[in-house]
Amino acid sequence: MNPASVGIVAPQRARFTEPLTLACGRVLSDYELVYETYGELNAGRSNAVLVCHALSGHHHAAGYHSAGDRKPGWWEECIGPGKPIDTNHFFVVSLNNLGGCHGSTGPVTVNPASGQPWGPDFPSLRVRDWVHSQARLADYLGIDCWAAVVGGSLGGMQAMRWALLYPQRLRHSVVIASALRLSAQNIAFNEIARQAIQSDPGFAGGHYLAQNTLPAQGLALARMVGHITYLSDDAMANKFGRDLRSGSLELGDETGAEFQVQSYLRYQGSQFSGSFDANTYILMTRALDYFDLAREYDDDPVAAFRQAQCSFLVLSFSTDWRFSPQRSREIVDALIAADRPVTYAEIEAEEGHDAFLMPIPRYLQLFGAYMRRVQETS
Amino acid sequence: MNPASVGIVAPQRARFTEPLTLACGRVLSDYELVYETYGELNAGRSNAVLVCHALSGHHHAAGYHSAGDRKPGWWEECIGPGKPIDTNHFFVVSLNNLGGCHGSTGPVTVNPASGQPWGPDFPSLRVRDWVHSQARLADYLGIDCWAAVVGGSLGGMQAMRWALLYPQRLRHSVVIASALRLSAQNIAFNEIARQAIQSDPGFAGGHYLAQNTLPAQGLALARMVGHITYLSDDAMANKFGRDLRSGSLELGDETGAEFQVQSYLRYQGSQFSGSFDANTYILMTRALDYFDLAREYDDDPVAAFRQAQCSFLVLSFSTDWRFSPQRSREIVDALIAADRPVTYAEIEAEEGHDAFLMPIPRYLQLFGAYMRRVQETS
Repeated sequence: MNPASVGIVAPQRARFTEPLTLACGRVLSDYELVYETYGELNAGRSNAVLVCHALSGHHHAAGYHSAGDRKPGWWEECIGPGKPIDTNHFFVVSLNNLGGCHGSTGPVTVNPASGQPWGPDFPSLRVRDWVHSQARLADYLGIDCWAAVVGGSLGGMQAMRWALLYPQRLRHSVVIASALRLSAQNIAFNEIARQAIQSDPGFAGGHYLAQNTLPAQGLALARMVGHITYLSDDAMANKFGRDLRSGSLELGDETGAEFQVQSYLRYQGSQFSGSFDANTYILMTRALDYFDLAREYDDDPVAAFRQAQCSFLVLSFSTDWRFSPQRSREIVDALIAADRPVTYAEIEAEEGHDAFLMPIPRYLQLFGAYMRRVQETS
Repeated sequence: MNPASVGIVAPQRARFTEPLTLACGRVLSDYELVYETYGELNAGRSNAVLVCHALSGHHHAAGYHSAGDRKPGWWEECIGPGKPIDTNHFFVVSLNNLGGCHGSTGPVTVNPASGQPWGPDFPSLRVRDWVHSQARLADYLGIDCWAAVVGGSLGGMQAMRWALLYPQRLRHSVVIASALRLSAQNIAFNEIARQAIQSDPGFAGGHYLAQNTLPAQGLALARMVGHITYLSDDAMANKFGRDLRSGSLELGDETGAEFQVQSYLRYQGSQFSGSFDANTYILMTRALDYFDLAREYDDDPVAAFRQAQCSFLVLSFSTDWRFSPQRSREIVDALIAADRPVTYAEIEAEEGHDAFLMPIPRYLQLFGAYMRRVQETS
């Protein structure tokens, strides 16, 4: 175990019995959120940082679940003692979002009305629903105001929406590798992922749990599409190139060849399809597609950000083509026009969109420097 | 019908009974190629241009098949009287490649040994197999030397391979939006397409014709993946943006929304799956993956191009991210180092990889100017 890790952590569970009216109009009468915390809440309750997860993320962002656990949380590079989100100073809260499949109420949990898993009948969610449920979690934990709300990709959308919906409940919004809204190309990739899942006979219209089947191949395909788009062309070239896993490209070899990248993708796909819920994947990609920060502000992101009262850190990565630096600059331009304090950096990194999870020195350094400023005012 | 069209054309069919030994070592004892020609072969037989098609192309590159035919050939913008490949001067030959599904011998034609469609038992092919079979077609048509061999994408790979395998049988090689070999990212997208097809229960291990099923959904998914990657982010943004086809993004609307880009992709996918053969798609993507111009020249493209005796035109498009300008510059750099005459242009175009099929003025102008030089020496 890395000495700079938060060490062994245990998920906790909060139940909420006050009904939550969702953006779609439906009401969740009660629900549970699974979360982890790292570090200690200070006496003034002013050092709390909310970490919002992305498409396939969950509450386990840092540390290990047991002494023998080899795999740390998904943001281990950024959360821990001496790390950008320094647990020597911050009290970090990381939850599994509503609709997720890692313990919080969602398609795989039981619908009290039917006694069966919600499955495809779980209400469709918007980013704002997550923000509202996270605000309830803040209430539950006694946190009036976050020192910062932080997230990458879909998580960054939550960090932005927080700034508009609860302007007095966060002092900083950290938006990494995100966008004001998805492009047609982004939506198209999500559509392919959903089509792959929904056309798998094992999907059974979403009722695969009730019917004891699984859309394993469809979910694997969806993940493969995602995985390619999260990596840059350069990163894939460096990682795999045209290396062969089996066979050869020699003339006269009829069996043909398999490239390393093929088997890697298949492995990633099958790993994912064994650990993630298909209905959750559909629900989360729809929330991504539908997110549009400025839609209800006459499509004017400047007007939207005028609601915000916090400061912003915006980060992007040079080879991220799913959420390119240009998309981050749109956020920054709108923040400047709205007269909001913003710090922006485009980080040179070859890892594409996945860079936000990686230990890239310049990234950790800039992110850490900003979080020290947050700390000084918390 | 456009007055600058070649007008009504009819496919022709050539049968070859001399066995063809393929790169994989297997032998086709006889085979047929379907082709079209546009313009007239001159007395010196020096004005013939071979057009090589890309992944989903075929022999019908220009003109119409009947007076009521609304859809011209796939390269109508570039082939015809007064067009870049000017049929007032050139005799154009366009064939359906071996292994195709538009009439030439391939997975959907009958294997004489079994009396059944070849299906997945059709031999795997390399780009060089197409070149050899095209050389036989040249013999059949009495063409000793092409004025030019021309192709985009996978077609450009054929144009390059021609220059190495039959250096004395072409005077010009026109390589548009192509590459010396695929990147890991390119291969990864092809792998997803194949996985989508092969995991469709209707694929039946490739024996869908014999079993009277079709991997329609898998082939549609494969096409959707291809389609996104052939378009640029900008082109999709301009074409679709976030326009809705149905529903709304209003709060309180539970039915949700469908974006135009979603229904467009589904339409494209279903159209394609009704007109293209899945085994051919797999075969062609494998040929793409395996193509590596310099592999047998110690991975040195300069050494490879030293085999060539023709002149080259290389064209790329600024927003093509599947075969980016950088990949074309690698071709150009190797040609220069090999002391081969080469003309290169990177064309500003927002259409991505698909730009090579589009009437982009600067593209048509440069392509046409080069072809007039070809004409002057033919």
